[in-house]
Amino acid sequence: MENLYVIKLGGNIVDQPTLLSACLASIAALKAPFILIHGGGKLATEMAANLGVQQKMITGRRITDAATLKIVTMVYAGYINKNIVATLQSYGVNAMGLSGVDGNLIQAHQRNNASIDFGFVGDIHKVNSVQFQNLLTQNIKVVVAPITHDGKGQLLNTNADSVAQSIATAMTNLYQVHLIYAFEQEGVLMDIQNTTTVIPKIDRACYERLKEEKIIFDGMVPKMDNAYLAIDGGVRSVIIGNAQCLPQLINGTAGTTIIL
Amino acid sequence: MENLYVIKLGGNIVDQPTLLSACLASIAALKAPFILIHGGGKLATEMAANLGVQQKMITGRRITDAATLKIVTMVYAGYINKNIVATLQSYGVNAMGLSGVDGNLIQAHQRNNASIDFGFVGDIHKVNSVQFQNLLTQNIKVVVAPITHDGKGQLLNTNADSVAQSIATAMTNLYQVHLIYAFEQEGVLMDIQNTTTVIPKIDRACYERLKEEKIIFDGMVPKMDNAYLAIDGGVRSVIIGNAQCLPQLINGTAGTTIIL
Repeated sequence: MENLYVIKLGGNIVDQPTLLSACLASIAALKAPFILIHGGGKLATEMAANLGVQQKMITGRRITDAATLKIVTMVYAGYINKNIVATLQSYGVNAMGLSGVDGNLIQAHQRNNASIDFGFVGDIHKVNSVQFQNLLTQNIKVVVAPITHDGKGQLLNTNADSVAQSIATAMTNLYQVHLIYAFEQEGVLMDIQNTTTVIPKIDRACYERLKEEKIIFDGMVPKMDNAYLAIDGGVRSVIIGNAQCLPQLINGTAGTTIIL
Repeated sequence: MENLYVIKLGGNIVDQPTLLSACLASIAALKAPFILIHGGGKLATEMAANLGVQQKMITGRRITDAATLKIVTMVYAGYINKNIVATLQSYGVNAMGLSGVDGNLIQAHQRNNASIDFGFVGDIHKVNSVQFQNLLTQNIKVVVAPITHDGKGQLLNTNADSVAQSIATAMTNLYQVHLIYAFEQEGVLMDIQNTTTVIPKIDRACYERLKEEKIIFDGMVPKMDNAYLAIDGGVRSVIIGNAQCLPQLINGTAGTTIIL
């Protein structure tokens, strides 16, 4: 089966135009087919503040009310998505910007939580892998905004890491899939203060040990857990590293590769 | 050659959720392949007011500065486009929402006007008819937001009537194209006060006579001129009528059909 790279581009990169542009140049250098998922960064929060829309938080979790859903749809699927596509097109990449509602790519259901009403937040239950494949075989590079739908006309705000993981897992019946979490760091580090201490490869036993030793901690834990969710779903490898080095991440000369 | 319907949905309809929903139900009933182009209505203007972005006008023409471009990209390509697609999907139509930058569908250049700087406004010079065809042959109904790009990374705000006309004209090498201006009126009326006076068919001689007699006047004149631009470009017919009666417009039992 052909290789497919499912790349999640972190919100910290999306927020910085010069850095974003450099990362997209690196992504444009890829020869293999890829699907790019972008986060939203702080732009939606800024837009909410500018519009006077209060961000509702319950026990530290953000709630997506109707006004917030409108903002994230505008910012993620409109502004960020179209600007990423315009930049990739200027680099000669035939990119196409879509959300989960387009071509019914990602179906979700509104999160059902007994204790907290998260509002219009989607949990994914189906990825249309055949539709993704139809686009990829036309040599289209798909750029995905993390907005999904319930099939009944309702858009839903959905975590971009989960979108990337769900797409990667769903595509394993058609491709040899590699999931890449591309962000502003060099990879998983032995010493968080020292960017030259990238761990090149981690298997599950190694991960458990590094977690016990608190070498892997905080925000890296949910990312690693998500990585193993993908691997358990049939994804060949998960690569974590700097978005400016995409070709190097793929050929194994940069970043951290997470395997079974 | 197969029939293709290029449908422009007027801004007045986009502005009214209940009316929009009814129109989309009518569009969903179409059996033939179609491309739907939507206008922006008043939502972008409202958003600009809410964000405190002054709308710049020069001699009565709106100027698209950077802040306004950001807003129209968010509102047209994000909010309106994704909500139309979500509604069509809920009606069982495999819709996909795109702008002119996606798949390099519509290339434009920034308007060059010696006397007025319109800002980030695009004049179309190339429609990627093969990319549209590739999507249509997959039974995808394409929903187009009137945002184009210059191929160098710059998004451009573009008149939706022109987008519809340019797409329709470009597709004539592949399909028997019919361009539909769908809006809130029944068609071209003999008496603007009486909705039962729809003129079923107009040819060019008839149009010139009706214009002289001031039966066709004001905003209908540029729409008719645009219609003849399409017809001169090889479009078989242009149909003007109520967006709630799409199947009837197509089978000739409603609206006004404009022919050579």
